[in-house]
Amino acid sequence: MTMEEKLMKKLSSGSLDFEAYFSEKALEMKASEIRELLKLVEAGDVISLAGGLPAPETFPVETIKKIAVEVLEKHADKALQYGTTKGFTPLRLALANWMEKRYGIPTSKVEIMMVAGSQQALDLIGRVFINPGDIVVVEGPTYLAALNAFKYYGPEFISIPMDHDGMRIDLLEEKLEELRKQGKKVKFVYTVSTFQNPAGVTMSLERRKRLIELAREYDFIIVEDSPYAELRYSGEPIPPIKHFDDEGRVIYLGTFSKILAPGFRLGWIAAHPHFIRKMEIAKQAVDLCANTLSQVIAWKYVEDGYLDEHIPEIIEFYRPRRDAMLEALEEFMPEGVEWTKPDGGMFIWVVLPEGIDTKLMAEKAISRGVAYVPGEAFFAHREVKNTMRLNFTYVPEETIREGVKRLGEVIREELEALKG
Amino acid sequence: MTMEEKLMKKLSSGSLDFEAYFSEKALEMKASEIRELLKLVEAGDVISLAGGLPAPETFPVETIKKIAVEVLEKHADKALQYGTTKGFTPLRLALANWMEKRYGIPTSKVEIMMVAGSQQALDLIGRVFINPGDIVVVEGPTYLAALNAFKYYGPEFISIPMDHDGMRIDLLEEKLEELRKQGKKVKFVYTVSTFQNPAGVTMSLERRKRLIELAREYDFIIVEDSPYAELRYSGEPIPPIKHFDDEGRVIYLGTFSKILAPGFRLGWIAAHPHFIRKMEIAKQAVDLCANTLSQVIAWKYVEDGYLDEHIPEIIEFYRPRRDAMLEALEEFMPEGVEWTKPDGGMFIWVVLPEGIDTKLMAEKAISRGVAYVPGEAFFAHREVKNTMRLNFTYVPEETIREGVKRLGEVIREELEALKG
Repeated sequence: MTMEEKLMKKLSSGSLDFEAYFSEKALEMKASEIRELLKLVEAGDVISLAGGLPAPETFPVETIKKIAVEVLEKHADKALQYGTTKGFTPLRLALANWMEKRYGIPTSKVEIMMVAGSQQALDLIGRVFINPGDIVVVEGPTYLAALNAFKYYGPEFISIPMDHDGMRIDLLEEKLEELRKQGKKVKFVYTVSTFQNPAGVTMSLERRKRLIELAREYDFIIVEDSPYAELRYSGEPIPPIKHFDDEGRVIYLGTFSKILAPGFRLGWIAAHPHFIRKMEIAKQAVDLCANTLSQVIAWKYVEDGYLDEHIPEIIEFYRPRRDAMLEALEEFMPEGVEWTKPDGGMFIWVVLPEGIDTKLMAEKAISRGVAYVPGEAFFAHREVKNTMRLNFTYVPEETIREGVKRLGEVIREELEALKG
Repeated sequence: MTMEEKLMKKLSSGSLDFEAYFSEKALEMKASEIRELLKLVEAGDVISLAGGLPAPETFPVETIKKIAVEVLEKHADKALQYGTTKGFTPLRLALANWMEKRYGIPTSKVEIMMVAGSQQALDLIGRVFINPGDIVVVEGPTYLAALNAFKYYGPEFISIPMDHDGMRIDLLEEKLEELRKQGKKVKFVYTVSTFQNPAGVTMSLERRKRLIELAREYDFIIVEDSPYAELRYSGEPIPPIKHFDDEGRVIYLGTFSKILAPGFRLGWIAAHPHFIRKMEIAKQAVDLCANTLSQVIAWKYVEDGYLDEHIPEIIEFYRPRRDAMLEALEEFMPEGVEWTKPDGGMFIWVVLPEGIDTKLMAEKAISRGVAYVPGEAFFAHREVKNTMRLNFTYVPEETIREGVKRLGEVIREELEALKG
């Protein structure tokens, strides 16, 4: 027993029945499986390709230090005080300009609200839009923590399969038509449009345009979660779905987690002011406002051009890691194993031959010194068992290579066992 | 029309019926009245006694700058990375020690979770404990934003009157007995135990002990919200209710907002690990973790003794302001007006003669150059109309004096009008 466990035991020897006080919804809450898995990995000589962490080497520490000192010298009264719920106005303005310049999306500061990481945006969207039983469309696989955030509000998830061009919009359309015949409507479609987590794929231009048309035709909202779009290592940029939105149907989520530092817990929502206003009121009740010190630092970071300077540096840092993983997969994976070839982001998605359950295989892999995230949890209905997510941003090239090599061996053995 | 309003109008000329997408609960959400009132105050030469802001002069800017530089030089990998949901372990440990030393509450780090300001703790408590219809006992008046946070989860509020010794525990007991006869139970009692917001009063030692006894007898939880206890300008400290808790019934909320800086959005929950664990899982879904840069800075601030050094400085800064307001009230308030005499905190509560509606009077007061918060919104059922909250921490002594003078005149006129 660890000290914590001992204390836990001591502390739990009281007479209270703690579970009895929880709300019904709280009783249903479960810890994130990935986080639980990562705890296992911390011990021992395990190469973790399981995490979703940016490499600390990409944090612009010197810039942050310089700006922090400047901000505390010149703007301490604002940077340390409560702020407005919507966020620090100069930062909102700077982001509006940045979105306009970078993505050609005409944006005003009234369309921008700052949040405590885009995770908070997902929770606020659940709070503001989802009635129990509402239909929410997600990609299959999709971002696990989005499922977690939405789940609290009791939606019915519909999962649309993906291919190398992202969500299969043709299948979405079939589903929408089917629902229409049943007199049902979709509340919103959630997509990680570029370099998706977990699959690494990007929704094609054509599909983006078609999705917007469908949103109008079938009257739903689109939640476009875009934490990775800046991290493009190859290929040509594609405009966000939000770029094609002239009605206010797209709620766009941006974040500083991958282009500055995740510790800032700072993201933004770009959406029609009617939607922003309601999410602002919801945010008032949950945490009043985002960290102001981080907001003022982020403001200088965007406004003074550090962000645009730093993005290419992050790209140069990650590209060799992506390449190393793709090369290692090519070299070490047995026949029958497939994977995505992302132009950016942080993840590669691996599909093993049917019959292999990656969740069952995970413990063995860890015992052999390599960890990945089993794909099952990324599916709203846990309908797929033979997939896994690999991260290539956190560990160096040679470690990636060794990790993939170990993984290849484990998979090879599993395949042998299947045959045998 | 302001530019924002113009743009809002332009942006709202589209064809979408935005309201139609919101969840039923979102349609019920309303903006905080105080925040709306404060927007009025920003224009013109109005002395605002309405806010709830700490004075920026009390922010230990030099200390924060020094620590920030040190943290970014030595701990950037941790301070800028994602952290665990529970919070930065050295900070949790430092706070556990601090609570033990300062309040004689034996605390382990497994009983501490960091949150994005204690406002987030209130939301998490709502999420984890309140089923629709559950009975939540609050003080009358109580902290407005707690009502806001809990309300989303659909509790039935019971409001217990206060006097100069805090919540009337005798009336609580009567209510508990009455509920028991109806076969009903209270889920939790929420109290701002020391220097209450908005009333400025402190629950007496005797009542604290009795409240714990009642919690055991009638089987409920106590949520003790304690943002102001460190700001004591006179009188002897009273241990927190949590000090008398040997069963794990008390969930204690602390915050750095008044002893470091509110912009850090950093608070903590001290509670039994069973409760902490569930709130940790809930927090995972809403924002993953608290701002890590702020957590690492706060750790050095507590650990290296800056906090204990700084508290007396804040006290010395605020005491004259409290005194100035008490003196001005004595000098300028007409007969029949009563107010609390807080030993600490940030607020004084004023009770006017029956018949005056402070909400109706507020606009007049603002036109005469002084703002306060009408008391109505602090009551769960808005049952009291003739009260107001005054803040004495944000503006200097002479401004407080002038503000109270103006307020006295407005009240005098109202009283004349009532008689006439």
